[in-house]
Amino acid sequence: MDVDEKYFNNISKRERAIFEGAITMGALFHQFIGTPVSIKSVESLEKSIEDTMKLQPCISRVEIKIDREILEKIENEYDYISLTGEMLDVKVVSEYSDKRAVIRLKFITELNYPLMYVEEVD
Amino acid sequence: MDVDEKYFNNISKRERAIFEGAITMGALFHQFIGTPVSIKSVESLEKSIEDTMKLQPCISRVEIKIDREILEKIENEYDYISLTGEMLDVKVVSEYSDKRAVIRLKFITELNYPLMYVEEVD
Amino acid sequence: MDVDEKYFNNISKRERAIFEGAITMGALFHQFIGTPVSIKSVESLEKSIEDTMKLQPCISRVEIKIDREILEKIENEYDYISLTGEMLDVKVVSEYSDKRAVIRLKFITELNYPLMYVEEVD
Amino acid sequence: MDVDEKYFNNISKRERAIFEGAITMGALFHQFIGTPVSIKSVESLEKSIEDTMKLQPCISRVEIKIDREILEKIENEYDYISLTGEMLDVKVVSEYSDKRAVIRLKFITELNYPLMYVEEVD
Repeated sequence: MDVDEKYFNNISKRERAIFEGAITMGALFHQFIGTPVSIKSVESLEKSIEDTMKLQPCISRVEIKIDREILEKIENEYDYISLTGEMLDVKVVSEYSDKRAVIRLKFITELNYPLMYVEEVD
Repeated sequence: MDVDEKYFNNISKRERAIFEGAITMGALFHQFIGTPVSIKSVESLEKSIEDTMKLQPCISRVEIKIDREILEKIENEYDYISLTGEMLDVKVVSEYSDKRAVIRLKFITELNYPLMYVEEVD
Repeated sequence: MDVDEKYFNNISKRERAIFEGAITMGALFHQFIGTPVSIKSVESLEKSIEDTMKLQPCISRVEIKIDREILEKIENEYDYISLTGEMLDVKVVSEYSDKRAVIRLKFITELNYPLMYVEEVD
Repeated sequence: MDVDEKYFNNISKRERAIFEGAITMGALFHQFIGTPVSIKSVESLEKSIEDTMKLQPCISRVEIKIDREILEKIENEYDYISLTGEMLDVKVVSEYSDKRAVIRLKFITELNYPLMYVEEVD
C-alpha cells in the first residue's frame, strides 16, 4: 500500500510537514509532562525526549531545553519537581519531500500559556 | 497582544486548522494511552477524553470510539487492560476562521500502525 | 495459578492493602497530570479518573477533587490549563481480605509538594 | 515540620519502604507507557526512566529492561512502536531507615498481565 497516495493526497507537501510536526509536538508535551525532574536528571531526560520523539513520521530533529533556573530554585525537601509547560522550550523539525517545518513550543509570559506555533516553514 | 498576528501570520487559515487539529490528536494519544479501561468504565473515559481535548485551541468537536470487542474479550483475572492505539478510532474537528479540518486516528491493520491523517479539509 | 500464594505470600494482608493503594495513587498522578482541564470539563474528568483507577487490583473506591478555585481564576485566553499536583486532593481506598487502607494525595503548602501518605489503615 | 512524624507515624518502617516503592512503580508505568520506542532509542529511554524515577522519595535504585526481541521484530514501516506493559521488566528498590523493599514489574504470560509485586522485603 502506498500510504501517502491513499491517505495524504488531499494535502500539500508543506501541509504534510506542518501536520507531522504538530502531531509530534502535541505528543511530546502530553507524554512527558508530569515526569519527575531535577538538575541531576535533566540531561538524560532531554536526551531521551529527543531520541524518542524523533522516531515519529517525518521528524528529522528535536531540540529541547528544560529551564535550569527553575530546577536550581526548587524549594522542597525532595529536590525534584514534576515537569510542566513553563519549563519547556522545544523545536521539532519535520520534513516531507522538499518541504520543512520548524514547530516551536515556548512559554509566553504575556499569554501565561505554553504556545505551540510554526516558527519556520518553506 | 494579537497572537494570530504575531505567531501565525506565516501560515494560511487552512494550514492553521490542520496544525491545531494535529496537535490535539498527538496530545490525545499520548495523554490517555496506558489508562486502565474496561467495558464498565469505557463510556465515562470516552466522554472525558472528548470534553478535555475539546478545550484546546480551535477544536470544535472530538469523537472517540474505544473498541468494545477488544474490551469484551479481555482475558485476565483483573477484567481491565491498558488503553492502546489498536483500540482507538478518533475524529478531531478543528476550525479556524472559515476553514475546517477533520483529523482522524485509525488503526490500519495492513500497516499495523495507528495512523493519523487529514480526513477532510476545506 | 494462585497469584496471591505465588507472588504475595511474603507480605501481610495489611501490607498488601497499602501496596495496591500506593500503586494506584502513583498511577493516577502520572496518567492524568498534564490533561487539559477547565471549569466546564472538570466534572467529567473527575468521574473518569474515579472510574478508571477503580479498575486496578484491590481498589474499592477513588475520590478526587480538582480545585475549582484555581480553575475559576485561570488567566489566559484559552480558558483551560494543564492538570498539576497543586490542584489535586485524592483518596484511594484499597481492600485486601479484611484489611483496608486509605491512601491520600494532598498538596501540602508548607512542603510545596503533593504528598502521598497512608491516611488510615487497619 | 517533621513529615515522617506528622504523616507516617501510623505505619511501620517496612510498610513505608513498600509504600514508596509501590508509588514509584505505578508512576513509572503510567508516565512512560505510550512513549515511542525503537531499537535505536531504547537505551536512552531506559536510562532516563531510571534517572527520573530514582528522584522519588526513598528510591535508591531503578533497573529497567525493555524487551529487545519485541523491538527487533517490529513490523511496520515506521520502525517504532508505543511502549507497552508487555515489554517491561522493572525493579524498583526503596529504602526507609534500615528497611528495604524490591518492587518488581514483570509481564506474566499465564496471567496475560503486567504484574507488580514485592519481590524482596526485610
